[in-house]
Amino acid sequence: VKGELVAVGTEMLLFGRRDGNGDWMAPRLASRGCPLVRRTIVADEAPAIAAALKEARERADLVVVTGGLGPTVDDVTREGLALAIGRPLRIDEALRESIRRRLRARGYLSEIPAERQSLVPEGCGIVENPVGSAPGLQFAGGGGGAIIVLPGVPAEMKAMFDPALERIPGLLPSDSARSRSLLVAGLPESEVDARLEGVIGVFPHRIVTILAAEGGVELHVLGMAEEAGAAAAEADRTASEIRARLGGAVVGEGGTTLAEAVGRSLERRRQTVSVAESCTGGLLGGALTSVPGSSAWFAGGFIVYANAMKETLLGVDPGLIGAHGAVSEEVARAMADGARARTGTSYALAVTGIAGPDGGGPDKPVGLVHLGLATPSGTSARRHHFTGDRRTIRARTVAAALEWLRRTLAAEG
Amino acid sequence: VKGELVAVGTEMLLFGRRDGNGDWMAPRLASRGCPLVRRTIVADEAPAIAAALKEARERADLVVVTGGLGPTVDDVTREGLALAIGRPLRIDEALRESIRRRLRARGYLSEIPAERQSLVPEGCGIVENPVGSAPGLQFAGGGGGAIIVLPGVPAEMKAMFDPALERIPGLLPSDSARSRSLLVAGLPESEVDARLEGVIGVFPHRIVTILAAEGGVELHVLGMAEEAGAAAAEADRTASEIRARLGGAVVGEGGTTLAEAVGRSLERRRQTVSVAESCTGGLLGGALTSVPGSSAWFAGGFIVYANAMKETLLGVDPGLIGAHGAVSEEVARAMADGARARTGTSYALAVTGIAGPDGGGPDKPVGLVHLGLATPSGTSARRHHFTGDRRTIRARTVAAALEWLRRTLAAEG
Repeated sequence: VKGELVAVGTEMLLFGRRDGNGDWMAPRLASRGCPLVRRTIVADEAPAIAAALKEARERADLVVVTGGLGPTVDDVTREGLALAIGRPLRIDEALRESIRRRLRARGYLSEIPAERQSLVPEGCGIVENPVGSAPGLQFAGGGGGAIIVLPGVPAEMKAMFDPALERIPGLLPSDSARSRSLLVAGLPESEVDARLEGVIGVFPHRIVTILAAEGGVELHVLGMAEEAGAAAAEADRTASEIRARLGGAVVGEGGTTLAEAVGRSLERRRQTVSVAESCTGGLLGGALTSVPGSSAWFAGGFIVYANAMKETLLGVDPGLIGAHGAVSEEVARAMADGARARTGTSYALAVTGIAGPDGGGPDKPVGLVHLGLATPSGTSARRHHFTGDRRTIRARTVAAALEWLRRTLAAEG
Repeated sequence: VKGELVAVGTEMLLFGRRDGNGDWMAPRLASRGCPLVRRTIVADEAPAIAAALKEARERADLVVVTGGLGPTVDDVTREGLALAIGRPLRIDEALRESIRRRLRARGYLSEIPAERQSLVPEGCGIVENPVGSAPGLQFAGGGGGAIIVLPGVPAEMKAMFDPALERIPGLLPSDSARSRSLLVAGLPESEVDARLEGVIGVFPHRIVTILAAEGGVELHVLGMAEEAGAAAAEADRTASEIRARLGGAVVGEGGTTLAEAVGRSLERRRQTVSVAESCTGGLLGGALTSVPGSSAWFAGGFIVYANAMKETLLGVDPGLIGAHGAVSEEVARAMADGARARTGTSYALAVTGIAGPDGGGPDKPVGLVHLGLATPSGTSARRHHFTGDRRTIRARTVAAALEWLRRTLAAEG
């Protein structure tokens, strides 16, 4: 079973807006045994939409279209679908009534949205929208692959995706493909690549790709098979092989973040952490608190961007800064000690570095970062030299700090 | 002049990796008078690439292809191009020598990369790669639009983009289109839309689109004309009209962020700001310090995620938290006062709220956020109720806090 996506929206053609809906659907369709063979972005113009749809139906068994279902005259995906399948548009009276009721309940009085959004090409089914007013459409007829049309609003598309697929019986054998993703941290991409020789690549029953990600390296595994269950077994076998070769560098699976892994370890041990941040300016705390329920193990911390703040808020000795500079091992340790003492947490992570683009020098170049980690059994420091622009250096600093704490917790058992 | 993009890469079809190259090139091609009519993503398979290329050449005057130029057997864009234009692949001896020299200088000994990367379809020009080893390719022959092929590595693609376009004479009249983008904050999208009636839309000489963005709403303006200079004048006229209708809600142009606007105001006035963050956990400080040189006006602050931290680090009265709850106007004010007093900054921004998914109740639902702002002339508080998931609520909170400070600074002149 082959799939295609068609995203409708002039903003992706003229203004560089990304097709986030397609990025979200692509791995989900693959894991349902419907790998994509092509993705297309077209303008909000009915003939362009119709042409893309007709071509896609010739190549694929399922075509999922997103966008252009809103209430304005710019929203012409309904017209494009009608042209593509050669059926007239008709107003669905029941649908119009339900959209009217929904809009009135929200205080909208215009009749136009209900008129436009209740237009349905003859022969198409309606996919209910539990979030917004635009219904989805579905068509399975002669002359090519089945078509599902969903709204471009991400929350609506996501809510309607599963129910829409369920309406096309037999299309997606649920166990012909199985995807798994693993996050790897603390190893450079080239090292991961070398250790996974023979695993990464395109093979008859699996595809394994390696992608650089914010917190490290992501491995995407797709197992494929014709027999029921064999795809999952292939994906499982591959994931096990990866874990065996990479050991503790595997942070977790299925979208697990470094912060989540750290949080789980801390929560299990009923321990807590605080932060003291200079060049990351709060991003480390922001990453830790991205985890729901982080209040169980994250207390808070200090953003000490100015040197004076390192002294007054954390009690770092001004003589230490004078002797070694603010970006130094000594100051990183003192920051971690100060944060741990003032918050009473089990651990404290400290960051001081030069994120650039200015502020670097021959001895202390842009990208130089010192991390400090205060623990119940002592305080250590680590030196990193990251490359990239300001955003990248700060993101890599956050990842390195989280990974250090994760490994420390793992080593303590 | 019409353009199309073809991105080559199985990772975008099976694993949801975004086509960042296309997102980057799309507005740049539009602003050179070559708006895109379609974007296509295909797999790393020569026949699929050839089919997409042939179709694109029939519709467009220029087709830019990215990806699949690496040295491995997976990299088959060269083969796809040769199939599409019906020309044989030949090794370019001079190119092979130059790639060999470059690779040897970096310590690579294998001959394979130079062999594969020096394959050129007959009749194609070579686009030099100043960053990596993979050269680009260029073809302008009968049977359709011109073709430019660039590597998928973003840094290489970006370095080669301008030189490649210059090699296609007459294709892109450099002043036939001009794009401008404006960031608008503090007004809901519907209000911006209403105030810009008659401005937003597709017109003969301009396209104006409105897009929701993290810090507010983005307006993208594309002016188009046949006479030199007229496109820029149209874009300027439209931007002026937008500013006249939206007034102080326009934060800035060309990718200006809220944090940059705040920083510019503070720096001009030689004033400083600090933060006290609960539910945002450091993201507000992270946003402020995303601006290079922010040390001139950002001192630091406090991440007070646990209530005990609000008391010990900021001196918030436990009785206040007991009486009103941590998420309250009173506590937001006290946090701002505490941060301003402890850091000695001109302003202090405080955030306390319920980011969810848990922790909400009937009186204080998920999304309820109280902001506090301490200034030289007094302290105020504001209440917001944001919708969305945890990530969205936190991002909207950061944007609202920055926008409040921006407006406050603007009002003070």
